[in-house]
Amino acid sequence: MPKRILRVNMNNLEAKFEDFPADFAALGGRALTSTIVEKEVDPLCHPLGANNKLVIAPGLVTGTLAPSSGRLSVGCKSPLTGGIKEANAGTPFSQQLAKMRIAAIILEGKHKGSEYYTLKVTMDKAEFTSADKWVGKGLYDTYQSLFKEYGDKVGICGVGIAAELLGASSGICFNDPEGLPSRYAGRGGVGAVMASKGLKFIVVDDTGAPGVEILNEEAFKEGAQKLRKALTTHDVTKPGGALNSYGTSVLVNIINEAGGLPQRNFSAGQDDRSEKVSGEVKAEIIKERGGKRPHACNPGCIIQCSEVWCKPGGKDPVGVLEYESVWALGPNCGIYDLDDVGELNRACNDLGLDTIEAGGMMGVAMEGGLANFGDGKKALKLLDEVKNKTPLGRILANGTAFTAQAMGVTRVPVVKGQSLPAYDPRAIKGIGVTYATTPQGADHTAGYAIATEIMGVGGTADPMDTSKADLSRNLQVATAAIDATGYCLFIAFAVLDIPEGLEGVVDTLNGVLGANLTVADVPGYGQSIIDVERKFNKAAGFTEKDDRLPEFFLKEKLAPHNTVFDVTDEELDRVWGP
Amino acid sequence: MPKRILRVNMNNLEAKFEDFPADFAALGGRALTSTIVEKEVDPLCHPLGANNKLVIAPGLVTGTLAPSSGRLSVGCKSPLTGGIKEANAGTPFSQQLAKMRIAAIILEGKHKGSEYYTLKVTMDKAEFTSADKWVGKGLYDTYQSLFKEYGDKVGICGVGIAAELLGASSGICFNDPEGLPSRYAGRGGVGAVMASKGLKFIVVDDTGAPGVEILNEEAFKEGAQKLRKALTTHDVTKPGGALNSYGTSVLVNIINEAGGLPQRNFSAGQDDRSEKVSGEVKAEIIKERGGKRPHACNPGCIIQCSEVWCKPGGKDPVGVLEYESVWALGPNCGIYDLDDVGELNRACNDLGLDTIEAGGMMGVAMEGGLANFGDGKKALKLLDEVKNKTPLGRILANGTAFTAQAMGVTRVPVVKGQSLPAYDPRAIKGIGVTYATTPQGADHTAGYAIATEIMGVGGTADPMDTSKADLSRNLQVATAAIDATGYCLFIAFAVLDIPEGLEGVVDTLNGVLGANLTVADVPGYGQSIIDVERKFNKAAGFTEKDDRLPEFFLKEKLAPHNTVFDVTDEELDRVWGP
Repeated sequence: MPKRILRVNMNNLEAKFEDFPADFAALGGRALTSTIVEKEVDPLCHPLGANNKLVIAPGLVTGTLAPSSGRLSVGCKSPLTGGIKEANAGTPFSQQLAKMRIAAIILEGKHKGSEYYTLKVTMDKAEFTSADKWVGKGLYDTYQSLFKEYGDKVGICGVGIAAELLGASSGICFNDPEGLPSRYAGRGGVGAVMASKGLKFIVVDDTGAPGVEILNEEAFKEGAQKLRKALTTHDVTKPGGALNSYGTSVLVNIINEAGGLPQRNFSAGQDDRSEKVSGEVKAEIIKERGGKRPHACNPGCIIQCSEVWCKPGGKDPVGVLEYESVWALGPNCGIYDLDDVGELNRACNDLGLDTIEAGGMMGVAMEGGLANFGDGKKALKLLDEVKNKTPLGRILANGTAFTAQAMGVTRVPVVKGQSLPAYDPRAIKGIGVTYATTPQGADHTAGYAIATEIMGVGGTADPMDTSKADLSRNLQVATAAIDATGYCLFIAFAVLDIPEGLEGVVDTLNGVLGANLTVADVPGYGQSIIDVERKFNKAAGFTEKDDRLPEFFLKEKLAPHNTVFDVTDEELDRVWGP
Repeated sequence: MPKRILRVNMNNLEAKFEDFPADFAALGGRALTSTIVEKEVDPLCHPLGANNKLVIAPGLVTGTLAPSSGRLSVGCKSPLTGGIKEANAGTPFSQQLAKMRIAAIILEGKHKGSEYYTLKVTMDKAEFTSADKWVGKGLYDTYQSLFKEYGDKVGICGVGIAAELLGASSGICFNDPEGLPSRYAGRGGVGAVMASKGLKFIVVDDTGAPGVEILNEEAFKEGAQKLRKALTTHDVTKPGGALNSYGTSVLVNIINEAGGLPQRNFSAGQDDRSEKVSGEVKAEIIKERGGKRPHACNPGCIIQCSEVWCKPGGKDPVGVLEYESVWALGPNCGIYDLDDVGELNRACNDLGLDTIEAGGMMGVAMEGGLANFGDGKKALKLLDEVKNKTPLGRILANGTAFTAQAMGVTRVPVVKGQSLPAYDPRAIKGIGVTYATTPQGADHTAGYAIATEIMGVGGTADPMDTSKADLSRNLQVATAAIDATGYCLFIAFAVLDIPEGLEGVVDTLNGVLGANLTVADVPGYGQSIIDVERKFNKAAGFTEKDDRLPEFFLKEKLAPHNTVFDVTDEELDRVWGP
């Protein structure tokens, strides 16, 4: 059977399978979500109105035996940025969709009433049931109950209380292999878009799924083998390597050492106490407590950077505490206690909040006087405001820029309305170029210059060097391509350094598609995705003035280097040219 | 003595007089504020940061005996729109500044601490005193006390509690001739900009002021005479005419009849109950209660459209209830009780809120479930939230778009972030073209197409005709010029129909400036102001995509005409050309 699109019209609660258009054949993941959003969504529509659409698409090789390929993309017009959005997650859900040969779910329209629905998707149909009993409930309990109701083999995607508030910092939550609501397509308020339409959960049951069609088995196998070899060889990705041993939080000490770990709402770049929330310390604690480390966020991942953080005795498992989350809810709030961070991360997952946006929000909330920096208990109480749907909760659920405006805070670390991740651009310039110029709003994953500037992957670059347009562009283009494949972005560490790894990636694509792509085709493929996204943003009113960091990065010096962000506007504009 | 600029640096609490640049000689009011903002303010600065500036400038003929010329302009980068802002008020304060030959006050920098200051300006100096005792207090009591402290001959400009919250709907309040805090440069959050710098009040004492220099007395007198004749002849502006008898609220019945008076957050264009809040009914009640009607908002106005609304027995005088305020806090909230409207208007004045933005906010707040449409008492309670600086108050003080986002409301009547005034663009297309294309954000005064479309002034035009680019442009250009002169915009009613009146305007300008302008110079002068404003907005990232009405006006039909806003994008873009 050929690939299909599941089109879900919430105006009349109708869901039907459609043929997958032939000219979309080479599109998956981000390439597919961005193409559909650009084709079908009015760039000037209200992002929470009937005319926005939400697209969920697994990558091209997702669902196959290719290593570390369990990613999916979620696309829409973002209520946070006002531009196009692709948010990405690693979850078994992606593989189930792919095996069912569902290339994309397109969610459109808007249910008129105030009811919420669950959409259950099986091989031959998609049906709605009421989800009202879950409204106002936390996702940890809810996902447990959903697995009880639908069976523990299903995949679940859903939105929490933050999305019920239509908060612009609400993400879409996917289950991890343990069934925990901890794998997020977090950024840009995608959760609010789903909730605005009246849909609370999608449950997929892949019973009877034929699996992903592979047109050239030999090319595929050979490619997967090459990639596997690269991943198991490279220091960053290999078993027992940095990511496998300590997870993404291995970066805490490294970035703090580099003076680029933002502290207390971006008011300093280094604090000795950061070590207390490092990946090394965390791995130790997880071992003591009986959590899991390493752990795969989806079956078939061989990097296995994930984990299950829990309370002592294995209680209240949270899922992974990513570097970004640890930083956002930790040092960025002056919090250096992993138990506080774990509780905050659990609360975010439970409420359906993007941890980066929530941490950015908490930083400005603290600067605005809602809590003292460092007060993890008060921070947790503030998240209760979201749970209780109070006016303050409505402020906080709308993210960093919104909370800053409500509280009169002018140090607002956002680009295109989206909160900055865990690298201060005053200390590491290339990532700042990515923050400024990606169509996504501030997003480290869009062109991870840290790899080269700090980790020496894919070459080396001085973090303080301000000529970073080429580095950022090359990474953004490569990333867009990877986001289309369904491979985890972390394969880039290996394939940037090991040419055979990149060949392997292309071979697996050729295997699935029956194509004859070469490594030389990758940049053009990636650029075409960026072009589509920039076309949408331009039609939504974006200009080069949106490709700038906020004023304070250019005016306030950051300790310990005491530098500002001094990449010129000309250099920023050189990323995408005139 | 020549004209001067008073430059106030809040970084170090330094205020000093500067020479008025020779190349600014022909600039006053909006021409001067927009020119200074464009020259001195980084378009990408944070509007509430140290690098924004607030400019207050009386018009070119303000302070003279020219009739109805007591206006001033307030300019800055707007925290509501993110673009350039000119907000305009009629007040004795403008005349005092002009007589002191202060062409502009430029407020810059930002006081570091949390203290608030009063700046007292006399002929030869400007001094700071603490204003902390007024923080958190309502402006009605405060202005009474200030007049007691500084003498009843001074002029006062100040900001209220909404501005202390840095709310984007806070205005700057000027006293009326009765000393009431009722004359507002209301729009665009200018109050927040003043408060952000640490300044709460400016008190001017014009003792010893030389008055406005008039270089050609003869031309001036002749012009003033011609204009006076036009104003006292035209049906709209003459004594006993429409404005003089009923104030701006004369429009309630007219616009309701036309099907363009937005009801309950722009969900209908007509409601029979609107008559209860009409200008005719209001004038009757004012007479019964012992308020004042007609009344001049500044000495020397011969239109005298203003009034003093009060409670029975003359108690709790509010000042004027303008048409816009009556609509915003009345029909737009489903409220048809003038006492409720009066109380709401008084609360807005007391808090320092722009009534249009506050009414737009209340409309979306009601749609979002914070009160039932029509519940004036609950609306008043909601404004108490601002007074009490609660989280909900912080939401509401930030205006319509902000409140809509917090409450998840998607029918959001704003352009460039600023709330629409009292004319639904689906029923009256030309005013919609102005809302969309003025650099100011939705603003009826920027190009008052209603004059021609509804009142038959300056020609006639079918409200439903969608070819309105020329009408709107011509009016926007003429308005910009008038806003530079210091004449009240309402002189336009007379001078659009009576050529000698317009000649009179130009003659008075020639008188003051010693120039030889002709009527033919007016459009070019107005266009140059718009050009400066559009240059700023472009540098701030605005494009033609910002010159659009929100989606719902294009999709939802408005009763009773059951039409959408169907002016094409091409027609909108034709206003300013490619």
